[in-house]
Amino acid sequence: MSVPPVVELPNVVDVVNIGLPLFETALRAQEQAVIGVDWRIPAGGDSEAVAALARLLGPRADRIERANAEVIRRLNEGVPMLVGIDRAGDVIPGFGERDVLHCGPAIAWQDMPDPLQRSVRAAVVAEGWAEDVAAAGALVESGKVRLQPANEHSTVVPMATSIGPSAPVYVVQNEVGGTTAYSSINQGSGAVQWFGVDNDQAIERLRFVRDAVGPVLAEALASRGPVDVFALAAQGVPMGDDVHMRVQATTNLFLRDLLPYLVRSTHPAAPEVATFLSGNHLMFLNVAMAAAKSLVEWARDVPESSIVTTMSRNGSTYGVRLAGGGDWFLAPSPPIQDALYYPGYGPETSAPDIGDSAVLELVGLGGPAAANSPAVAGFLGGRMSDAIAATRSMQRICAGESPRFRLPILDNIGTPVGVDVRKVVELGITPAVNTGVIHASDGSGQVGAGVAWAPIACFIDALLDLDRRLA
Amino acid sequence: MSVPPVVELPNVVDVVNIGLPLFETALRAQEQAVIGVDWRIPAGGDSEAVAALARLLGPRADRIERANAEVIRRLNEGVPMLVGIDRAGDVIPGFGERDVLHCGPAIAWQDMPDPLQRSVRAAVVAEGWAEDVAAAGALVESGKVRLQPANEHSTVVPMATSIGPSAPVYVVQNEVGGTTAYSSINQGSGAVQWFGVDNDQAIERLRFVRDAVGPVLAEALASRGPVDVFALAAQGVPMGDDVHMRVQATTNLFLRDLLPYLVRSTHPAAPEVATFLSGNHLMFLNVAMAAAKSLVEWARDVPESSIVTTMSRNGSTYGVRLAGGGDWFLAPSPPIQDALYYPGYGPETSAPDIGDSAVLELVGLGGPAAANSPAVAGFLGGRMSDAIAATRSMQRICAGESPRFRLPILDNIGTPVGVDVRKVVELGITPAVNTGVIHASDGSGQVGAGVAWAPIACFIDALLDLDRRLA
Repeated sequence: MSVPPVVELPNVVDVVNIGLPLFETALRAQEQAVIGVDWRIPAGGDSEAVAALARLLGPRADRIERANAEVIRRLNEGVPMLVGIDRAGDVIPGFGERDVLHCGPAIAWQDMPDPLQRSVRAAVVAEGWAEDVAAAGALVESGKVRLQPANEHSTVVPMATSIGPSAPVYVVQNEVGGTTAYSSINQGSGAVQWFGVDNDQAIERLRFVRDAVGPVLAEALASRGPVDVFALAAQGVPMGDDVHMRVQATTNLFLRDLLPYLVRSTHPAAPEVATFLSGNHLMFLNVAMAAAKSLVEWARDVPESSIVTTMSRNGSTYGVRLAGGGDWFLAPSPPIQDALYYPGYGPETSAPDIGDSAVLELVGLGGPAAANSPAVAGFLGGRMSDAIAATRSMQRICAGESPRFRLPILDNIGTPVGVDVRKVVELGITPAVNTGVIHASDGSGQVGAGVAWAPIACFIDALLDLDRRLA
Repeated sequence: MSVPPVVELPNVVDVVNIGLPLFETALRAQEQAVIGVDWRIPAGGDSEAVAALARLLGPRADRIERANAEVIRRLNEGVPMLVGIDRAGDVIPGFGERDVLHCGPAIAWQDMPDPLQRSVRAAVVAEGWAEDVAAAGALVESGKVRLQPANEHSTVVPMATSIGPSAPVYVVQNEVGGTTAYSSINQGSGAVQWFGVDNDQAIERLRFVRDAVGPVLAEALASRGPVDVFALAAQGVPMGDDVHMRVQATTNLFLRDLLPYLVRSTHPAAPEVATFLSGNHLMFLNVAMAAAKSLVEWARDVPESSIVTTMSRNGSTYGVRLAGGGDWFLAPSPPIQDALYYPGYGPETSAPDIGDSAVLELVGLGGPAAANSPAVAGFLGGRMSDAIAATRSMQRICAGESPRFRLPILDNIGTPVGVDVRKVVELGITPAVNTGVIHASDGSGQVGAGVAWAPIACFIDALLDLDRRLA
């Protein structure tokens, strides 16, 4: 028998932990230095997706990179200008006089979740097509109202919003790209249709927005002239807005801009509208959404790209589209996680993720801009490092960086722009969207707020389709 | 001859460099780890000051700490409420009908620097006491106008501002402390008296502020009710305001609050005032100053404290006072350093540091709140670490921490509050104030912006006086 050689153990071990953080956690607990690499099996080990990834990151990568560079250029160089407010039916292409546009992918009336059905009923009553919500429901059920996804009409609406043709909409023009996009006017808080409420108060608010807020703002904007939407958002980001969950600084910049014209307004509703504007810190959300939409509408014409240009939910399904590919890829809308609820509410009473506002996450706002937002941090765990982690996570799945939205806390790097479906699938990281939580069934509106992670399935399907299209 | 013993040099040296950073710099250049301790000879080696410090940090420290705790409590727990706008001569105690209140310590007409003389002349013309600035100068020179430091009348005014009795002033009440303080209304930018301009335009602006801005704001405030000034400032700090050099976020919050009342105004000047407000991002500066003054007015009654409750400049002298000590201690007003100038201007054409706005640095705003301000960082060198360094420097010389002004970038620590003259003298670190630079002699107004470090001499004198008073 030979004696085994004596092996001297070193005093210091340099450890890199790859994958599951078992060693990393143990070593950190002992205050040992360790580098953790968050490696996962690509595409969760799905062999079809892995094969597609190998092609899309390998032999087909050049074509894709060229296309993606053009998409990023469009997302970053478009200049969305808010040029006015108009009647939806008059300006939105293909908006018929018996149409209602709704958030998210196309969905039949009977498949709509309760908050969206309520929203549509409220819109129908506000249009004057039915006397009350019961009659409105019957009218829609009879097929006499055409339901259309807003996204298919260059329009985006937040949460459970739906709009009829008489609703006033922001008109945002991206002149350099020749695209125009639209969004509804934010309804504020309380009993409001965009949170899936269809009571008299919510319907009254819709009429107030149409008959007072819209005209007063339209008049002020006409006097002021076009507003460079992202010039305001670019100021708002260093002021702590992610310009999705938190929009207060940008809203205030917008109001300050409009102040001289609001004070000069001779519209009889101007005082009441001023009170409404002063109390609605989400006012700019919809303006920013329309601006984002005007950019992705330009970017979607670029063929052979792996970048997402639609990301939208109707409370039942989550849908994505890629630039250069017209098809929607769907998955069930996810529940909202890590949510904070109003007293008496919880996950069991909450609707799944809903609304078109995730369009912001595609252009460098929302999650990508979380890092500098104390309000978002307060929501993600309380420390700025939590907000920074949200931005870092988006960095891992994005193809570019914004030259206009900059993060002081990260030494003014630009926010990540352009969600690359290849990175999403490879890393298994989907975009996280900070969003409101609304009641699933009783029409009581907002019950909390939380984080919704997009479901991976629709990204995998979009990836496989891209792979087929490039074959 | 004996052979010297062989000394084995270690491979790794742990170095702590104390004092002048010669070794530190050299080691850092070689990428070696080194801890630098910024140690200096206490009080610059001034033996009288060192002896006083030994007593004030030694046997007399207990009494001082007790007093300081009460001062900090007052600075942190007072709640300054903006209750209205009134005619200065009607509300400011001891303001005679032929008085002019000016920034900084008391100073005779002939000793006033050019920008302050111009300011006083403009105020005299605006009051209607003289037809033009030449006549105004003669009138003041004849002794028929009484010149008084605003600070002695519970009033603070920024830069070269001076006010006559007809000027409208913010009235800020700190109810819990029973103190009231006042400030002028900000005049905006361009050819303005607060930057030492006395031409027709500047005088016209003074009249506009008196006859239009004052009344319209007063009416709006009366309708709205009292405004919690530091509740707004506490929101503004996480939005990137230091609430001194940068006040935009807080100004916008203030305007949003007033919007409903401004729109309802029936005053004929309301539209013009709205345009003025919309274009003046420093509007809230004076409001915050009056609020800070209401707190230091309360704190100054506390005897035996080493905390500074007045810090003010008239462009010729820099003056400080301590809580519990009524006397001013003066030193020449410093030049403004690290300044950025408009083209064609430079240090040789610039006036020394001027104005009462440094009162903000005494209550946790301005320099203490720099860390979270991208705008201030942009000014100090461009990186947030530069802004953080400014806050860290104030931390070293302050006795407490603000429970209301919090810095997200530093994990929500409170801003440093209460400049302790013992720490200032011991460390040789004086408060740095970010301020505008105005022309020294030609009345052309603002020519740049920079950093003014308070002169150490007045702090040493205040320390020696405290030492005598506690004997």
